[in-house]
Amino acid sequence: MIDVALLGTGGMMPLPGRWLTSLLVRFNGSMILVDCGEGTQITAKLMGWGFKNIDAVLITHFHADHISGLPGMLLTIGNSDRTEPLRIIGPRGLRNVVAGLRTIAPELPYDVILEEIETDEWEGDVCGLKVGAIRLNHRVCCYGYSFSLPRKGRFSRENAVAHDIPLKYWSALQKEDRVVSEDGRVFTSDMVLGKERKGIKLCYITDTRPKDNIPAFIKGADLFICEGMYADKEKLEKVAEKKHMLFSEAAELAKAGDVRELWLTHYSPALVNPKAEVGAAKDIFPNTKAASDRYNRTINFEDDEGAV
Amino acid sequence: MIDVALLGTGGMMPLPGRWLTSLLVRFNGSMILVDCGEGTQITAKLMGWGFKNIDAVLITHFHADHISGLPGMLLTIGNSDRTEPLRIIGPRGLRNVVAGLRTIAPELPYDVILEEIETDEWEGDVCGLKVGAIRLNHRVCCYGYSFSLPRKGRFSRENAVAHDIPLKYWSALQKEDRVVSEDGRVFTSDMVLGKERKGIKLCYITDTRPKDNIPAFIKGADLFICEGMYADKEKLEKVAEKKHMLFSEAAELAKAGDVRELWLTHYSPALVNPKAEVGAAKDIFPNTKAASDRYNRTINFEDDEGAV
Repeated sequence: MIDVALLGTGGMMPLPGRWLTSLLVRFNGSMILVDCGEGTQITAKLMGWGFKNIDAVLITHFHADHISGLPGMLLTIGNSDRTEPLRIIGPRGLRNVVAGLRTIAPELPYDVILEEIETDEWEGDVCGLKVGAIRLNHRVCCYGYSFSLPRKGRFSRENAVAHDIPLKYWSALQKEDRVVSEDGRVFTSDMVLGKERKGIKLCYITDTRPKDNIPAFIKGADLFICEGMYADKEKLEKVAEKKHMLFSEAAELAKAGDVRELWLTHYSPALVNPKAEVGAAKDIFPNTKAASDRYNRTINFEDDEGAV
Repeated sequence: MIDVALLGTGGMMPLPGRWLTSLLVRFNGSMILVDCGEGTQITAKLMGWGFKNIDAVLITHFHADHISGLPGMLLTIGNSDRTEPLRIIGPRGLRNVVAGLRTIAPELPYDVILEEIETDEWEGDVCGLKVGAIRLNHRVCCYGYSFSLPRKGRFSRENAVAHDIPLKYWSALQKEDRVVSEDGRVFTSDMVLGKERKGIKLCYITDTRPKDNIPAFIKGADLFICEGMYADKEKLEKVAEKKHMLFSEAAELAKAGDVRELWLTHYSPALVNPKAEVGAAKDIFPNTKAASDRYNRTINFEDDEGAV
């Protein structure tokens, strides 16, 4: 299972009562923070998951509302007695931006490892999760991220027998990828397991216009967190000029990507009550929620009954 | 008169319910912001004085809790339609620090004029106020600031007669420094005024250990805003090591400087209820207040009865 907390839901500037959009993903004792605008450390403190186990920070792009809180966050993580290295992953230019911001946070009790994404698509292991990135369509280079946790197939007695695996290795092969028998034979877990079951998938897309590569990227996600600057269709021209989306555009992506649930975020400061304006998006994709600060849930593997 | 708002009262990191220490001084339609930690723009928005008229930002020193909110603040000031230049004044190194932070705020609709203080003492005109600075004793170069508004003497009929000033220039000389008569004689305002009256003086001292030059610098201030990290005397060693002050040390300075009122600020995140612990400081300097966020007041010229 992974825990997901949307720490803030605002865009452009932090407001009294609405923090800037950022995400905390917790898995297996480790945390990944996605974006860190001004004040993110305060809403993270309210969330109560602590700071010490933030092992990686992913940055979508270098607009201030997505990164201005980074130096304060790095210092606060330092004050939590962290000494293990911390990874920061983001677009090309990350080293320059972090160096600039660290003018006021030059000394930290842990190493910072910077990794620049150089390509339009990227994949890597971050804190045990499979993380994917795709380049979006914003005013500056910006990436959307996915977080996947695959799930092995169920134990299959038929497979084990068909592969002639001695009974005493059945248990080990459900936990480990590979076992060597006493007489030197190599058995692999696929010999005793059925086909891979549906895992967990979470996607985070902000800031961007709708783009053709998004539906495939978010395909089948349990949770799709997506920006929506305004709901009002009359704002389309303004939204498009700023390279953002309407609520309805996010809902269209959710539908095309066949996701389970959509959380809207990154609202304009001028949008006072997002929940009141979510109707048209729900007409397109019924399981749409206008998220508010610290919206959170745990995503579990599906019951076996429901497994693919 | 000048309006004073202490936007936050915390030190080290912003907390839910306690913003980082910074000050807004409003005079004659202009505003001066002193320090700008993470979240200062949010408490400033709650204060409601607007952003467009922030004409100058003074920085005490470059620890993150005093400057990490600067890029976001500059952008928000830009969003308020400001086009007039904005001055930023601070210690040597200001250009480098602001350049680093502006990596994420490179484009602003107004010019930023940077002024580095090169000496241990400094004086200048900022937005019509006489601003003084002295070097404090912190872990990095840090300045305390004073804001003074002088007040001319009262009109003195005796002086005017003694200087043989024609009646028709009496009124003009109460407003202007200098008047030339029709027959070419030069009259100056001191010829018709009594001695200068007590003006307004505000002082802001954080972060520092007590220092010998502070009492003279704050002498007679109407309001002295001073750091106090902890109240508990048992914390002295820790406080001294971090180059901060106890409440009682701030109160001793207020007493030595013969100020009218002391507001404590810049509390440790570990100090939960500053107001409950202000007793010992009040024993030293009775008019001590443990300020909280957005403490504010208007400082007027004294009634003439009370004038010096």
